[in-house]
Amino acid sequence: MQTIHQLTLADAITQTESHHSLFEQERRKTPLKKSKIFQSQSVQFVDQQTEIGTILKAIPSTEKNTLPSKRIAVLFSGGPAAGGHNVILGLKHSLRPEDTLFGVKAGPKGLLSGDLFELSLVAIEAVQNLGGFDLLGSDRTKIKTDDQFQAVLNTVRKFKLNGIIVIGGDDSNTNASQLADFLKTENCHVIGVPKTIDGDLQWGKFLPISFGFDTATKVYAELVGNILQDTPSSRKYWHFVKLMGRSASHVALEVALQTKPPIALISEEVKDRNISLDTIVTHIATVIAYRQGRGLNYGVVLIPEGLIEFIPDLINSLPAELIKDRDSHGNLKVSQIETETVLLNLTQKKLADIQAKPTSYLSQEPYKLTETEIQKFQSSEFSSNTHFFGYEGRCGAPSAFDTTYTYHLGLGAGALILNNKTGYIISMTTSNDILALPLSGMITEEIRDEKATPVIEKALVKLDSPAFKYFESRRTEWARSDVFSSPGPRQYYGPTANQLPITVALNQGLDSLLFTQ
Amino acid sequence: MQTIHQLTLADAITQTESHHSLFEQERRKTPLKKSKIFQSQSVQFVDQQTEIGTILKAIPSTEKNTLPSKRIAVLFSGGPAAGGHNVILGLKHSLRPEDTLFGVKAGPKGLLSGDLFELSLVAIEAVQNLGGFDLLGSDRTKIKTDDQFQAVLNTVRKFKLNGIIVIGGDDSNTNASQLADFLKTENCHVIGVPKTIDGDLQWGKFLPISFGFDTATKVYAELVGNILQDTPSSRKYWHFVKLMGRSASHVALEVALQTKPPIALISEEVKDRNISLDTIVTHIATVIAYRQGRGLNYGVVLIPEGLIEFIPDLINSLPAELIKDRDSHGNLKVSQIETETVLLNLTQKKLADIQAKPTSYLSQEPYKLTETEIQKFQSSEFSSNTHFFGYEGRCGAPSAFDTTYTYHLGLGAGALILNNKTGYIISMTTSNDILALPLSGMITEEIRDEKATPVIEKALVKLDSPAFKYFESRRTEWARSDVFSSPGPRQYYGPTANQLPITVALNQGLDSLLFTQ
Repeated sequence: MQTIHQLTLADAITQTESHHSLFEQERRKTPLKKSKIFQSQSVQFVDQQTEIGTILKAIPSTEKNTLPSKRIAVLFSGGPAAGGHNVILGLKHSLRPEDTLFGVKAGPKGLLSGDLFELSLVAIEAVQNLGGFDLLGSDRTKIKTDDQFQAVLNTVRKFKLNGIIVIGGDDSNTNASQLADFLKTENCHVIGVPKTIDGDLQWGKFLPISFGFDTATKVYAELVGNILQDTPSSRKYWHFVKLMGRSASHVALEVALQTKPPIALISEEVKDRNISLDTIVTHIATVIAYRQGRGLNYGVVLIPEGLIEFIPDLINSLPAELIKDRDSHGNLKVSQIETETVLLNLTQKKLADIQAKPTSYLSQEPYKLTETEIQKFQSSEFSSNTHFFGYEGRCGAPSAFDTTYTYHLGLGAGALILNNKTGYIISMTTSNDILALPLSGMITEEIRDEKATPVIEKALVKLDSPAFKYFESRRTEWARSDVFSSPGPRQYYGPTANQLPITVALNQGLDSLLFTQ
Repeated sequence: MQTIHQLTLADAITQTESHHSLFEQERRKTPLKKSKIFQSQSVQFVDQQTEIGTILKAIPSTEKNTLPSKRIAVLFSGGPAAGGHNVILGLKHSLRPEDTLFGVKAGPKGLLSGDLFELSLVAIEAVQNLGGFDLLGSDRTKIKTDDQFQAVLNTVRKFKLNGIIVIGGDDSNTNASQLADFLKTENCHVIGVPKTIDGDLQWGKFLPISFGFDTATKVYAELVGNILQDTPSSRKYWHFVKLMGRSASHVALEVALQTKPPIALISEEVKDRNISLDTIVTHIATVIAYRQGRGLNYGVVLIPEGLIEFIPDLINSLPAELIKDRDSHGNLKVSQIETETVLLNLTQKKLADIQAKPTSYLSQEPYKLTETEIQKFQSSEFSSNTHFFGYEGRCGAPSAFDTTYTYHLGLGAGALILNNKTGYIISMTTSNDILALPLSGMITEEIRDEKATPVIEKALVKLDSPAFKYFESRRTEWARSDVFSSPGPRQYYGPTANQLPITVALNQGLDSLLFTQ
């Protein structure tokens, strides 16, 4: 018999391998609470026949024990987002012992090839509250061709599936809707779960935000806050920071509201107000010159990754092969393009122009300088750094918000499948109502590669939304002075843990930045 | 009379401007506890005359009220590090109402020009527990010439200073030692405080680590952990991550121990074992090929920023003007060189070579592949991303460790000044002893620009240290499989808040990763 002895520190460190850091161990054992509303086991349906905007009635979840057992598959589709594992945990918790839950390996690709495995509760609990999509893996395959639909049918038949849960973004949920139609005669139901760090899968008060957005923006906002905090300490750098997020600028807007930097560009404004590349660059360079004149020779410029799509001048200046390089959903690979460096170089040229003709740029409010200040600007040196924050925000441990939100999305998706519902996307409102929205009502047509293609329209930043209007009302002040904030790292304990995204709180008309569970 | 009404959400958000995020408000009001040992008001001195290694005796801090009042200046020198504000708070708390504390604006430069202002407790409490050096600002001026020393003397006389506290790294503390000698006859005492995120200002058990290292490595470790978590989710990317930290690889080693990535390079090993650039690249490419063959076509390579200094082949391949570009301390501007991209490009070439001759590389343990696995490797595509984490780690909110450590360094520095001590650097051991180490005992000579120059030798990673030996014992396992961990974001509440750096815990022979206050 071995004597039990104390671990050495080295042994204890080895025991933290394979997702057993002190943090991961604590997160994993933190229990999840079902919201009060969900405890009543009701999912509200937004009716498909009437205009979206009316919640018809609450339908209680079917008495679980009277239904035949179900075989359900769940998959991740597209880029990872924090909280995916908790969707699956909620789903598993909503099922009964006689139901079987399968995980689809490596995304839609695995659905085509029939790469499924049974998901035990123990396996899911091992990733409870933790980031990543690694329980299943993911990919970006779009199910388009007849052969692909046939392949899915084969998988459905082979595994005798009664349901498929697609955890994905706008494109993947469009696919989910098509699969729901296609599989209706097979008695296999399809439910979508709204995932994307970009935040562009939204539907007014019915779907306030996709999951993963809160975690990603909180990761980026901490980093941007840290860098802002560095600027008056080092007193010499301008940081041009590109933030991940395809077409829409929700990420950039949220991070701007969290941190209050001197400059944040919003792609939708550039497009809607038809702002030229030269106007953007002139604005950036003017703010830099103004701040140099006022002794603030440092700052941060936030640049949404998708900006490139909204500025024809910028796209036209790029080599053609870069423009043609699109993913299987037809999207431009914008994260490959160093917009931040392109803008930085243009800004430096413009600054030289302002140096030569300062009064053309710096004699009007709000960026008016005195003669002494103009001399100070002219004797200032410009130093810069570029950053791109993207991958580090997709798989972080889900924030308190994403942790609980995704768990409820999973519970709701399971309830829909048990109730034989198909073609819905599951949602949860800021008043903790679980909603089922018909996917067909969200789908429109878009011309892609010269063909009409069904799509869920990306929710872009609206210039008349409370969040944008608030940003607009404060940004000149942020540019002229140093009023930034650092939101700090995500907390899981203590008074600041339960923070909502600021854009969501504003756009949903809430009166607090904190949520209650 | 105005009616008092509730704030709207927009007003509440505006109130979070200027360092008033919910997080910053909570951090600011968190009280600091004096450690039990410090409550006895004792600082232990490591005697200057004997070999460093003997703590002679504990000298109680002089009874505060019997001494004449003092006028003391404090400055930041060099790059920012988390916790600097709490050093100043501790310093202020150690002084008496009749003493005056001045802040020096913008680093050593401000000491030369006499740019000092009186620091009130209210001003310091406004940045309590918060990151950055913005209370004073900083710069990298080195005080070298007779004119510069004379300028300091003028400032000392103008403000009637009895003491100067220099918060800085190895170069700045060398300066502090010289100033202590130079100002002895002026009855102005100089004390250094060990600051640098690089972690290369260490002195065995007497100075376990400089402040700022813990926060920076925890910021980087969260990001690297998030990216590692992304790899088996996305299943396609290799991430080449460069980490800030000049010559020494303490940062890379700490982040590696926190996250367990497939590959982490340590500059000191490259130097001490005389490892060639080709050997490094071959190792990286072999591990990538091996993992591709085993179905793990993703991973992370950690690269210390200072690596470039240790590989003559790499330096020789760079344009000469880059090598000449050094800062005022004579240091190579390594953060400007994209070592991560250089290594990535070389790795891609080497991978092509392995593709052509796989058995030359993949037929020996520990990276031996079967024929089927070699085919799998040969049909794999290599996709990559590069990252540089640096500025985002210097000014984050100080970790729980740095928060309390820096406060005690400040208390200790104040006690030394009140006791008329000069030429010491203040330290705190892992058993909470506050120590005063004579700077003169730490200084040696180094040839810089062909001249013998006094320097504090940088503490490099030692290959026989417990931390490196532990890393060495595990890294092959980390390369061959997926056993990484995500340490998560820094916590300030709950069971995981009080974590020590793992390298420090190992090298100091501790039996826990948690510290008690």
